[in-house]
Amino acid sequence: MAGVISPSMPVYQMEDKSGNKAFSNLNEGIGRVLRYGAYGSDVLSRLKWLSTTFFEVLSLALKELKREKPGLQFKQIIAQALTMGDDCHNRYNAATSLFIREMVPYMIRCGVEKKILLEVYDFINGNNFTTLNLGMATAKVMTMAAHSVKYSTIVTTMARNGTETGIRVSGLGEEWFTSPAPRVNGLWFPGFSAEDANPDIGDSAITETAGFGGFAMAAAPAIISWVGGTSAKAMQITERMYRITFTKNKYFLIPSLDFSGTPTGVDIRKVVKTGITPEINTGVAHKNPGIGQIGAGLVIFPMGMFENALRSFGRTYGLV
Amino acid sequence: MAGVISPSMPVYQMEDKSGNKAFSNLNEGIGRVLRYGAYGSDVLSRLKWLSTTFFEVLSLALKELKREKPGLQFKQIIAQALTMGDDCHNRYNAATSLFIREMVPYMIRCGVEKKILLEVYDFINGNNFTTLNLGMATAKVMTMAAHSVKYSTIVTTMARNGTETGIRVSGLGEEWFTSPAPRVNGLWFPGFSAEDANPDIGDSAITETAGFGGFAMAAAPAIISWVGGTSAKAMQITERMYRITFTKNKYFLIPSLDFSGTPTGVDIRKVVKTGITPEINTGVAHKNPGIGQIGAGLVIFPMGMFENALRSFGRTYGLV
Repeated sequence: MAGVISPSMPVYQMEDKSGNKAFSNLNEGIGRVLRYGAYGSDVLSRLKWLSTTFFEVLSLALKELKREKPGLQFKQIIAQALTMGDDCHNRYNAATSLFIREMVPYMIRCGVEKKILLEVYDFINGNNFTTLNLGMATAKVMTMAAHSVKYSTIVTTMARNGTETGIRVSGLGEEWFTSPAPRVNGLWFPGFSAEDANPDIGDSAITETAGFGGFAMAAAPAIISWVGGTSAKAMQITERMYRITFTKNKYFLIPSLDFSGTPTGVDIRKVVKTGITPEINTGVAHKNPGIGQIGAGLVIFPMGMFENALRSFGRTYGLV
Repeated sequence: MAGVISPSMPVYQMEDKSGNKAFSNLNEGIGRVLRYGAYGSDVLSRLKWLSTTFFEVLSLALKELKREKPGLQFKQIIAQALTMGDDCHNRYNAATSLFIREMVPYMIRCGVEKKILLEVYDFINGNNFTTLNLGMATAKVMTMAAHSVKYSTIVTTMARNGTETGIRVSGLGEEWFTSPAPRVNGLWFPGFSAEDANPDIGDSAITETAGFGGFAMAAAPAIISWVGGTSAKAMQITERMYRITFTKNKYFLIPSLDFSGTPTGVDIRKVVKTGITPEINTGVAHKNPGIGQIGAGLVIFPMGMFENALRSFGRTYGLV
């Protein structure tokens, strides 16, 4: 991690060796949070605190860390967390633990007063999704490195905006291929049900695009208590994703598959040929504004956008 | 955890609601450590530091914790760690992470100077076996609660001293049943091999006695990188242990088996009937004094002591 930028809306900045940069904001937790559409004085005061107190402590601690290291190496934390029951999309319990283990000495050293230090520590410690946003920015940088490779049929973005789901393909530049956003097969927070759910929304599917998250669910059987399903299903999703991906990840390994690399790089040719589309896990927003996150679950992406992408690929490269 | 006792040889004190108490010393790490037979100025100076600096910080932090809570609830940490890829015998990466998450605020608050605080933090953070000894004391308290129940055929102690392996049985009081200590099927630290290995040694098999450790290996496929085998074998060991145990643990759950409780309570009747003996994972000591830990691996207990225990049970209760 290269730094935390701008106190008006602080973001994490993630950067690779070749200079690709991606950004993500600070995680608010679950439930009544702005990113799922909640608003109100509770939401605003938390955001205010994140952009002042939390930002100040974290950026001081990162400055302290950068006296010793180039930055926080979050790809390594993901790799290790996958051996500790995280998938690193909807389960970040281990990654957040490892983040805490790494950051604590710098937080202690950074010179902030004890009361403030403990306040920030308690927030991080109380929110296992603290590191989700670091994981997303890491995934984004990784997929940027794969983007705009001529002839490549690898998907480098998967994102949903609550109305449509879209992909971009490495060899097809900035063109988006979209389908209507699917519904989530979810577990609901108390008081909510499938009827309250908005169609699939969010940019966190960048984690699956980079070869973890839902694609690594075989590494995270405990996630079924959060997104539903069975441990066999978690295993099957990973096994199915091998059939539509280009390779096994060199860095992200799944212990329960004898440290096989995670399925990485969705290939639009394999998707269309097999009829299998990417399957992810995700949080779910209420369909009405102001309420927030109401559950989490599993989503199977629609086929149409992959077929359209393959047709476009044929046209672009003169194959049809 | 109730406290840390005596600065001459500090030990953890673990205690249950009914007053059972068990103790364990402070973990030194792996390799050249006294508990595996190593000695020398490096070993002694570490022990000295553990019994002074480390002890002082940890006991101050625990005092701070006990202003808010009855003590550190380590059974809960084991339960959570089993959902994070630990077995809690030879893999304590998650448990140590959770211990750190719990203790950090109290360590910060306890008033010790920053330099010392960071020194102790770095030692804990650098040694994922920090919490092994807490796990052992927890297991001991749990098994003490099951001991001396009339007619019970449940094994309440399994221990090895490098020459013999021994068990005690709940309904048979203080009598030990022993067999020669078996050899460990291990992975060796660089420079060592099976020829250097001492027969099985240590009291850490109390973890399996209480229903975790090797019995929970299905929860910890990543442990195979430490003790050898395959992820399928890790799964099979747990499945085999269900055949010789009395029940499924209410607290310790295995996500990859859809949160099935761990096999708990070795029943000498089932051992003799099935011909299956307990299988544990363990560290391995060099056969010569002064060297220390040289590897880790898997051990299958010998049958003789279980047969002898069952015969004694028959005599004790007038069944033969």
